[in-house]
Formats: sequence, C-alpha cells, structure tokens
Amino acid sequence: MKDLKAYIQDNKDRILNDLFELIRIPSISSKEAHKDDMYKAANWISEYLVKKGADQAEVCDTEGHPVVYGEKIIDPSLPTVIIYGHYDVQPAEPLELWKTPPFEPEIRDGKIYARGADDDKGQMFMHFAAFEYLVNTNQLPCNVKFMIEGEEEIGSPSLGNFLKENKEKLSGDIILVSDTSMLGAETPSITTGLRGLSYCEVHVTGPNRDLHSGLFGGAVANPINVLCEMIGSLIDENGHITVKGFYDDVEELSDEERADMGRAPFDDEAYKNALDVHELAGEKGYTTLERTGIRPTLDVNGIWGGYTDKGAKTVLPSEAHAKISMRLVPHQKSEKITQLFKDHFLSIAPKSVKVEVEFLHGGEGYVSPTDTHAYKAASKAYEQTYGIKPIPYRSGGSIPIISMFEQILETKTILMGFGLESDAIHSPNENYPLSQFLKGFETIPYFYKYFAEK
Amino acid sequence: MKDLKAYIQDNKDRILNDLFELIRIPSISSKEAHKDDMYKAANWISEYLVKKGADQAEVCDTEGHPVVYGEKIIDPSLPTVIIYGHYDVQPAEPLELWKTPPFEPEIRDGKIYARGADDDKGQMFMHFAAFEYLVNTNQLPCNVKFMIEGEEEIGSPSLGNFLKENKEKLSGDIILVSDTSMLGAETPSITTGLRGLSYCEVHVTGPNRDLHSGLFGGAVANPINVLCEMIGSLIDENGHITVKGFYDDVEELSDEERADMGRAPFDDEAYKNALDVHELAGEKGYTTLERTGIRPTLDVNGIWGGYTDKGAKTVLPSEAHAKISMRLVPHQKSEKITQLFKDHFLSIAPKSVKVEVEFLHGGEGYVSPTDTHAYKAASKAYEQTYGIKPIPYRSGGSIPIISMFEQILETKTILMGFGLESDAIHSPNENYPLSQFLKGFETIPYFYKYFAEK
Repeated sequence: MKDLKAYIQDNKDRILNDLFELIRIPSISSKEAHKDDMYKAANWISEYLVKKGADQAEVCDTEGHPVVYGEKIIDPSLPTVIIYGHYDVQPAEPLELWKTPPFEPEIRDGKIYARGADDDKGQMFMHFAAFEYLVNTNQLPCNVKFMIEGEEEIGSPSLGNFLKENKEKLSGDIILVSDTSMLGAETPSITTGLRGLSYCEVHVTGPNRDLHSGLFGGAVANPINVLCEMIGSLIDENGHITVKGFYDDVEELSDEERADMGRAPFDDEAYKNALDVHELAGEKGYTTLERTGIRPTLDVNGIWGGYTDKGAKTVLPSEAHAKISMRLVPHQKSEKITQLFKDHFLSIAPKSVKVEVEFLHGGEGYVSPTDTHAYKAASKAYEQTYGIKPIPYRSGGSIPIISMFEQILETKTILMGFGLESDAIHSPNENYPLSQFLKGFETIPYFYKYFAEK
Repeated sequence: MKDLKAYIQDNKDRILNDLFELIRIPSISSKEAHKDDMYKAANWISEYLVKKGADQAEVCDTEGHPVVYGEKIIDPSLPTVIIYGHYDVQPAEPLELWKTPPFEPEIRDGKIYARGADDDKGQMFMHFAAFEYLVNTNQLPCNVKFMIEGEEEIGSPSLGNFLKENKEKLSGDIILVSDTSMLGAETPSITTGLRGLSYCEVHVTGPNRDLHSGLFGGAVANPINVLCEMIGSLIDENGHITVKGFYDDVEELSDEERADMGRAPFDDEAYKNALDVHELAGEKGYTTLERTGIRPTLDVNGIWGGYTDKGAKTVLPSEAHAKISMRLVPHQKSEKITQLFKDHFLSIAPKSVKVEVEFLHGGEGYVSPTDTHAYKAASKAYEQTYGIKPIPYRSGGSIPIISMFEQILETKTILMGFGLESDAIHSPNENYPLSQFLKGFETIPYFYKYFAEK
C-alpha cells in the first residue's frame, strides 16, 4: 500500500486525539443514567464517518440504544466489506482501583489507559483510521459499510431486529470485526471460534425480613448459606458442571484438532505469574487454552447478601443474590442451556427458601472456517505486516451477534482482533498498547487489498 | 409498691418523650462516622441519671466508646443492684426497607418504631423509669449503680479493661439486664442461658485483578465460586457444622433437661407463618427451641464480590468476601472455636486462591442457675405483675459481657428481658410494644423489693 507507514506516522497523533474525544463520552450501555451519552457517542461517530469520507451516515433508532450506519459505495459491482464495532462500554466499577479516571484517556508507558481503550472504541478506531487512509490516498479497492452498535456489552438485544429490518441495506461479502485478542504481541492470531453465553441472575429468599442471627440462627434457613451451597454444587471436584444435560451437545474435538490447538505458543507459568496465582484451576483433562477455547464454563460474576459494610452485624438476612454466567461452545444452544440451568437450579433448592432464576442475556457461539477467501485475505494481511502467518485460534470470549450475522444476514465474519490479554478489558485500568493500535491500523488496509483481489 | 400503676399512667408520656430524645441520637457503634454521636448519647444519659436522682454520674473514657457510670448509694450496708444496658445500636441498613426513618421514633399500632426502640435503648429506659419512680416515691430499697456501655453491638471490646480498672467501684450483689426477649407477650420468661459468639470475616483472593470471564473463565479459579463451595461445605446434610473439633466441648443436655425445655409453649407452624417460610431448617434431631437454645450454629451474615449492580457484567472477580459467625453453647470457648474455624477454613482452601480469616469479635456463653435468691426475686416480680410464674429459658442470642461480669466482677447476672421475637431487632422497622415497655416498668420495682428482702 502506497505511503502507508508514512501516513500512519504523520497522522497518528491527530487520530488518537479523535479517539480520545470518543472515549471521553461515558457510553455505558447497562446504566440507565448514561442514556444520553449513548446518543452523544452515536452522533459523534456518525458525523466522524462522513468527515472521513463516507457518502452518508445515520443514527438509527432501535428499541434500545441506537446503531450507527454509514457507507461508501464506490462501485456496486465491487465486493463490499462491512465493518462492525460497538461504541458502548462496560461499567468502570470498582472506580477506586483505577490509577487515572476511566473516561479521561491517558498514555502511560506506551499504552492508552481508559474504559473502552481496547474494547471496543480503540479497536474500532483502527478501522476508522484505515478507512480514512484508503480514502485520502485513493486506494479504497471496494465498498465499505459501517454498522456500529451500542448494546454489545449488554447482549445486543436490539440488533437482531435491526438486522432483519435492514437486511438489504446490510448486504455485503464479509463482516470485519476487531473486538478480540491476539495470542501475544509477537504472535499474530485470528480468532476462529467464540463461545456462546447464558447469563442469569438468581435470587434466594428465606424469611420475610432480616433476622437476628442469634435468636433465629440454626432454626431458619439462611439464604446466603443456602445460595453458597447451591452454587458450590454446580461444579464438581473434576471441574465438571453438574447442570443436568449441560454437556449433551458439546462438540468433542478430535485428537488431531486438539494437537493442532496445542501448537499455539502458550506458557502456563507465565500465565500464572501474570495473574499472581499459585495454581490454575479448571476442568480435569484439558489444557488452559482448551479450557477457555473449546470447553464450556460456569462463573459467578457477582454475589451479594446480608451486611457487607464495615464491622460485625449479626444478621440472618432475608435475601441473597448472584449473577451466574455460562460460556458455551459450538452446538450448545443458549436458550436450551438457560432452561437446563433454570430447571437444575430450582431442582436443587431446599424447601426452606424461595428461589428465582432470571435470564439476563445470552447468545450463540461461532466457528469460522479457515479455507475461505476472506480468511486467506486476513491471513495474508497479517503476514504482510508481521512477517509470519497468524495462528487460527479459538477464544473463550463471546460475541453473540457473530452467529446472528450468519443467521440473519447470511454473511461470514472475520475476527481480526489486535487486543492483548493484558489489556484488562472489563477491568479497572483497561488499556490498549499504542503499538497494537498502530499495527492494526497498518494491517487492515492489506485485508481490503487482498480481499478485493478476487 | 405504692401508687406504681398510677405513677406509670401519669408519667408515661413524659418518660417516652425522654426515650425518644435518646433514640434520635444515631449512636451506631460500628461506624466511625458516628463517633461524636456516641459521646452525645453518653453525655445525655449521664445528665439524665443525675436528673432522675443519681448521686453522681460520669462519662468514662475507654479505648473505644465511653461507658456511663452512675450511682445512688443510700446505705452501704444495703444490697447493691447494678443496672447494665447499652446505648449503642446496630446500623440501620437497608434503609429503604424502613417505613419511617430509623432515628425518628414513631408510635404506630401501639408500638414504638425506631432503631434501638427495643435493643437496647427502649429496654434500658424501663430501668431509668423504675429508678425515677423508686426515688420519687421514696421506696428505693437498696443501692443502685448504672453501667451503660456503648460497644455492645460490636462485641464490647473495651468493657473488659473497664471492668478490671473499676472493679471496686462496680462491686455489687447482682447485675440486672434487660436486653433479651420473653417467649411471648402472655408468656413471661427469664433468660437463663445465652450463646457465645465467634465472628470472623473471610477474604478469598484469586487473580490479581478483575478478569474477563469469557477470556479467563474455566482456566482461573473464580474466588466467588471457590468461596461458595467452601461455605457450602461448612454445614453437612444433617445440619452439622463440619469444622473439625467444633462439637468437642458442646454440653449435651439430659433427656430430662430437654423434656423441661419442651414444656415451653412453642408452635412451629405459627413461627413459620410469622417468617413466611415453607419449611424450617436446622440440625437434625433437635426441636426449633433446642436449635436456637442449646445447639451451636454457623451463619453467613454477609457476602459480597464481583459485579453487583444492575445488568450483566461478565467479570471474573479478583476477590470475594464473607462475614461468618458462630453461636456457641456453654463450655465452647470462643477463642478455641475461632482458632478451629480458622484452621479448618484455611485447610479447605484450594491452592488456586489465597484465603485470609480475620477475627472480628467473640464472647462466651452463659448459664444462670435458677435456685439463687436473685432468680427467685425476679421470678416473684414477674408473678406479681403477670399473675403467672415466668419460664426459665435459654436464648439463642449472645451477650458476651455477661460471662465477663462473672469472671471479672464475680457477680451474677439476671436477664429480665421484655423484648418480643417480633420486635425485629437488628432489622428494618425495629419496634417495641408500648405494653411491653410499661410492663417492664411495672415489674422492675418489684425485683428491687424482693431482692432487698434478704
């Protein structure tokens, strides 16, 4: 690509400033209080796309937060690349653990620190930058459509309808997404699998009011004790999930496929050291990458009940609650697993308490083939900028909409993520190395080039 | 007693107003922010006692919140009754469940609603009222000393030293305490047993930061899952506590003693209905009153970890915490049980997490004999006002300082509590029926009378 490295060098500061403007809008999709910020961010992006060369862009209302759609059609007979990204971010709590405010981006030690620095404002912006470069240097080899949503972090509840209602408009040859990680800064990889998700909240109610634990303790079921026992029973001593029927549809990989996966460079010791844990944990008989890549899991994401302030309060609380999510592998259906979980959880509840299971959100997993033109174009693009072929890799994360794209739009997706595991997405001090941002900026134009060479 | 009923009738409104003044001071001992309120309440009581006829009263500094000491010595050769009470209260959280503000007392349906209405400002005030009556009508038959502390709800950490340093000043023949409940409004009872307490906070730390549950889930121990499993294992399917050595010192009652206990009127159905639970729970082989009265228990008083706000956050948290307390029966020593718990809890921790056990507070149980002069005086006092003999009864609650009184001051205690189970102490909408307050006011002077008749 003509003058690509020079263009990046000359324009990166300005582009980063643009990204920082977007990051400063606290577009937290899960919080009602940030509703206006969602529109603010969507409008910002819509105007930005036009400024960078889109023929047109619009903020499309949905039942939830809006979707930004933009396009540049240079020739309808050419292939069309659809760029998907999301402008919404996770809540920033616990705020006290951030070294600098989450919505005031700062570059430290070569990394951008902010909520959304990686997920997904930072990664999405690499596409805006690549688009700007291709337009400004007259090298755009195909049509481009942008579909930037605001509900990814809450399970994209409105996107399905949006896709259905705009199927024609969203027609294209490939969807390109940067919202995943690479295996390492020196180990380019393309995510070829994502896990599905079933996310529930459970409520355990005991007595109709908080009681004195001395006067009533021992005679009345304590909902926290009960909840703990129920949760404790969900995973057995081999790391297997005990929900009845949970593994029925799990795809078992062949020894060959597992051996292939095992070739990805990965060091348990370094992984443990980075997380400061003495021992890893998980399902017996599987490696770390297998545990996160090809096996389903169950995690409690939050728990609360009783007195949680400083000091000692001798209360036997009326209620206890937990958020429990399961990551699913291909062939496990989110809806079915949610029902199995619900049935199981209610079945293990003792009669001394009332238990409710509330479904919060879910989505299906995805597997991408590696023998397609699009995958090969992506692979060549990485090879161009990194000098080595990227490793196809199954990630533990979930982007439920990827399977929706295939189902509704009938279009495949390529996951060209440039994040690193150390980016602390969803955590305090989320960050994104400048070098990754710039490498993504450099790699994406080559994808367009090779993809257009049909 | 001369004109007792008329005195109560004529003065109750004024006395209740005085009580309400004290209740309005939010003397929450566990919260640093209320430090000044502790002094405010202590000073208020000190001045009040002098106003009501004490020879002198003083606010005594301790390492923690102050103790109020007051006395009226009419003749050193007469017996001395020591009145113990506490002016500190439990936190009022969760505030949103209170129908009226916790520190703005209100009388509704014949009950005083407020934090401290019963525990212990309301019950303590019956003694102030009885003292006022005895002084004003020249019927005080013995000496009186008041010892009103401000740290009962946090385990009385400073009282032991205070007792040791003021042993001479606190000499007396009996300690009289109203900080317990009766079996029912029509069933007078005297608490002859209290449970001991060991209260700990446990901390489970997994990875050094909050992680993305998709990328890391299944490969890294989730501290909430681990904490739940650990807590779930603390009580087995028979309701037995699994802490090694926990039952070694538990006093086993004879069949006769258990049959005696069984004579206390108690209805499991009514108890369940009042709490709105379908089934009671607890140690197999014991009745409800035995479970709370003569058996040790373990309750989680609070638990927290991960994302607990609205919506779905897919976090694998770094930490999880719980407050766990055990109620102990006679012969179980708090310090020993705390150590056993600590050893056990650390021993069941998997290597994938770090676990800490922090001791918050504890105290010993107490058993009061029923053949003493003081017990008989109390029993006669109840018989005088209720027309029936009170039932000696072992409560599930803990007032760790009662055993300290015996140990340090070498003085026995009589627990003349007028609370009811429905008073919701330590809970939202704590209340105290006016009828109980007035009955206590009426009964206490008779105790003085019969106790002085040596």
